[in-house]
Amino acid sequence: MNTPHGKIKTPVFMPVGTKAAVKSLDSADLKRCGAQVILANTYHLYLRPGEKLIEKMGKIHNFMNWSGAILTDSGGYQVSSLGHFIKAKDKKNNFARSKIDDEGVTFFSHLDGSKHRLTAKKSIEIQMKLGADIIMAFDEATPNRGKSYARRAMGRTHRWLTECVRVWQKIEKKKTKQPAQALFGIVQGGNYRSLRRESAEFVASQNLPGIAIGGGSIGQDKGETAKNISWIREILPEDKPWYFMGVGVRPSDVISAVECGADMFDCVAPTRMARSGQLYSGKLVSGGKNGWRFESEFARETLNIANARFKRDDKLIDENCDCLTCASGYSRAYLHHLFKASELSYYRLASLHNVSLMIELTEKLREGIIKA
Amino acid sequence: MNTPHGKIKTPVFMPVGTKAAVKSLDSADLKRCGAQVILANTYHLYLRPGEKLIEKMGKIHNFMNWSGAILTDSGGYQVSSLGHFIKAKDKKNNFARSKIDDEGVTFFSHLDGSKHRLTAKKSIEIQMKLGADIIMAFDEATPNRGKSYARRAMGRTHRWLTECVRVWQKIEKKKTKQPAQALFGIVQGGNYRSLRRESAEFVASQNLPGIAIGGGSIGQDKGETAKNISWIREILPEDKPWYFMGVGVRPSDVISAVECGADMFDCVAPTRMARSGQLYSGKLVSGGKNGWRFESEFARETLNIANARFKRDDKLIDENCDCLTCASGYSRAYLHHLFKASELSYYRLASLHNVSLMIELTEKLREGIIKA
Repeated sequence: MNTPHGKIKTPVFMPVGTKAAVKSLDSADLKRCGAQVILANTYHLYLRPGEKLIEKMGKIHNFMNWSGAILTDSGGYQVSSLGHFIKAKDKKNNFARSKIDDEGVTFFSHLDGSKHRLTAKKSIEIQMKLGADIIMAFDEATPNRGKSYARRAMGRTHRWLTECVRVWQKIEKKKTKQPAQALFGIVQGGNYRSLRRESAEFVASQNLPGIAIGGGSIGQDKGETAKNISWIREILPEDKPWYFMGVGVRPSDVISAVECGADMFDCVAPTRMARSGQLYSGKLVSGGKNGWRFESEFARETLNIANARFKRDDKLIDENCDCLTCASGYSRAYLHHLFKASELSYYRLASLHNVSLMIELTEKLREGIIKA
Repeated sequence: MNTPHGKIKTPVFMPVGTKAAVKSLDSADLKRCGAQVILANTYHLYLRPGEKLIEKMGKIHNFMNWSGAILTDSGGYQVSSLGHFIKAKDKKNNFARSKIDDEGVTFFSHLDGSKHRLTAKKSIEIQMKLGADIIMAFDEATPNRGKSYARRAMGRTHRWLTECVRVWQKIEKKKTKQPAQALFGIVQGGNYRSLRRESAEFVASQNLPGIAIGGGSIGQDKGETAKNISWIREILPEDKPWYFMGVGVRPSDVISAVECGADMFDCVAPTRMARSGQLYSGKLVSGGKNGWRFESEFARETLNIANARFKRDDKLIDENCDCLTCASGYSRAYLHHLFKASELSYYRLASLHNVSLMIELTEKLREGIIKA
């Protein structure tokens, strides 16, 4: 896949830099991890520091000093989940809530409670100001509220997609010197075969540069993700990149997604889990249902560095890993000490490891695919 | 100066890695900053993870994966300040306090309130287990409590020094394969000319590998530091390194200390100030009382990155700086954003800058000295 910031080799794991920064890592760290594309979040950047400031600072690549490719999400997931998923908390503090209607989403900032509105048009306009290489259509992340709700949400997502395409084409046409931004549509429809197929047909018919699959169980459970993909596999355009949204909590999720045909996927889990002490450990071996599996001596594919058993363990997190942390020789005992002492350097060394391992794993699967 | 971990070029600024980690930085970062020696704290490492664990993990260099030189303090400053300087807090929470007697200090851990005792012998034994290249004699940091208290404290510090030398020589004699550790004595005596001179005479008479000046106003105010040094200048051994303890809050402190003859100095300020948003900005120019001065457009030689004036400032923290942060091109606007958003990467980028600038400054002064 070609972008204004270089060719992307797929499949690709994309680290998440919510606020124009991957937590604890800088650009050189991300290059060292092998990152090709990173994600940034429209919702967060719109609220702070604001898309106008980022545009003025030479757009998002210049602002955050990242020369690789960037993908921005649409904010749809955040603003709709503010309403769907954290209702109990909302009621208590009168913050962090949203109301979805057919035209868009009205929501309250998690920073200061101020009222805002995002629509398909607004989301695209913000994303075009931010200036990422790949931008996403505005959608509603479908909650688990039955089929009729999922159908209504899907209908909205489709209408919003049409609007996104219209606004995007209009702005792209006016551009003379700035590089083109690739718009991806998002397949929704919850965990319902008929809705997923209807949504895949509709999004595919837009003939956009790429297609994403979001909502429902995508990213939450590899079996469910695989089932959802199997329903729409023959509808998805073969010549366009497939982006599985939020996929990659554990190494086995990456293997499963790539085996399902994913070209792109992103997840906050590698950095988030690193910060809480969960470090991936294990290696890719042939075998398993589809040819590969992640072999680990640890349940859930991670060791918990907080565990007292690592206090005197002078081994690396993972002896097969080429990340900066393992290659430099930091032991489990030292990382255990840093974690217990809440040393800031722990968060970076741990995040470098988890992100690097996911990217390395994806590279190995890519080589496997190319060889095969 | 020669150590088992390489030759140290003086004058040298030593970043502080209290718990065997310089806050937010890893070993490669420290190398990139030009660090030759780093400090670690006996008090903190004795309490967690314990000197026995560190010894078992191949001593402190292996444990923290740092191939340069390391200096450990004696714990004297920490345990005596627990008693001297934070009395009000102590009374409230019954924690963090200590009692000094002529034989040593009994204190309560800041981690869990458990009772411990440090003596001259114990401090040297711990430091020899930790395995730093340079170790410090156990001393009492003299509080501002009048001359007669300062004289008593100095007397204790001198008796403890004699004991430290005895224990150190005994352990060094037994060593066959392990590298020798250099013991430094510490001049105390508060801000009193006669006591400082008496202390300097006594410590110099021990003929140790190096001599440190601590307590009183040393490190707190450059004018006072200079005055204290001027009293003892001709007593300090010319052929041994002079270590000014806790010096280097601001660039001008470094200039002043080097002009007073300091060969080594350490300070937590560069990393601590970085974390609170205070970033050094300016450059070394000739002029000033003794030949050099730090020219900065900012009062107190730092900019406060939290300030709204930096929100849209696309300049570097310091255009003359070669640190990773400035060399990579991170702007004040981006660092302001990271700081406001409490992003972990801010702490590292800011610390890299402050530590690097202090070391670069020291290198420039060294070149100036060699040239002159």
